[in-house]
Amino acid sequence: MKLKKTERRQAIQKAIDSNPFITDSELCEKFEVSIQTIRLDRTNLNIPELRKRIKLVAEQNYEQIRALEASEVIGDLIQVEPNKSAQSIIDITEDSVFMKTQIVRGHVLFAQANSLCVALIHNSTVLTQESNIEFIEKVKLHDTVRAEAIVLNKTMQHYVIEVNSFVKDTLVFKGTFKMFYISEERING
Amino acid sequence: MKLKKTERRQAIQKAIDSNPFITDSELCEKFEVSIQTIRLDRTNLNIPELRKRIKLVAEQNYEQIRALEASEVIGDLIQVEPNKSAQSIIDITEDSVFMKTQIVRGHVLFAQANSLCVALIHNSTVLTQESNIEFIEKVKLHDTVRAEAIVLNKTMQHYVIEVNSFVKDTLVFKGTFKMFYISEERING
Repeated sequence: MKLKKTERRQAIQKAIDSNPFITDSELCEKFEVSIQTIRLDRTNLNIPELRKRIKLVAEQNYEQIRALEASEVIGDLIQVEPNKSAQSIIDITEDSVFMKTQIVRGHVLFAQANSLCVALIHNSTVLTQESNIEFIEKVKLHDTVRAEAIVLNKTMQHYVIEVNSFVKDTLVFKGTFKMFYISEERING
Repeated sequence: MKLKKTERRQAIQKAIDSNPFITDSELCEKFEVSIQTIRLDRTNLNIPELRKRIKLVAEQNYEQIRALEASEVIGDLIQVEPNKSAQSIIDITEDSVFMKTQIVRGHVLFAQANSLCVALIHNSTVLTQESNIEFIEKVKLHDTVRAEAIVLNKTMQHYVIEVNSFVKDTLVFKGTFKMFYISEERING
């Protein structure tokens, strides 16, 4: 059912509050209006476009990471709970696909997932030791990939992290990463 | 035992013929002379520096690959026997290391190995399906990494390829890659 303007704007505000990474085209579908209407609504609500919302969230998250410089995270870090979980988003650009097929190159998804694992561990020295990965669905030019990393296990020297990457709701990549870290307690004492 | 100049130059020519990717500093050690002497000997023998030798070999190899544009291979392709084996070389530059530790980022070694697998398969559509990898030794800024890929197994849809990567003689990375390809025989009939 189509909503009236005021109701729709309230609903858009609510939708973005609950998922700051919803795209304009997802909002279009949800509210059955044109993309121009969504843009106008956002302007009226003073909500920046998705890319800016992502950057704003990412900037706050970069303050929480230790092993990496912010510029070293591949993708935008949209959520991080140190030593527990993290999420990042990348847009697939021309540089990231095979020229012939326009399908994303494997190492791009690997780099997103792997740098997310490094970012997630709240430690200054973190290295990848092993990884088992699977490419499940083709990712194409202009897709947006969201990677979710979650710590499965932690020992004195290692974290085992699972990463699942999605385009919209489709699982496109999954990997397990065994990450080595140097415990600072051990170094300092 | 140190050789006389003429003998040494003959021996250098022979050493480079048998391993075109030997570095000047390896030649120094081998022949117990300074790097200046090696450079002078090479100039005299009309043998270009290593980087140029690699590029020359790589250019010939790019003609043999199908799934990739030459610019898409990560590293210089120094050997390729389609559907059997391939080797590439990369120099680790500032862009490829963590700023804090100067240790290479995992996805760089992954990208070298993975693109070597794509290059090796003489087919126009090749995608990575699964990979199990291991980072064995730290690779540092200015190291040169040589990756060797060898086909272990081939079916109607997949190649299984093992990649071992070395800095000098030290194994630094190994991986198994299950690559999906679309058989052109099947497509054409």
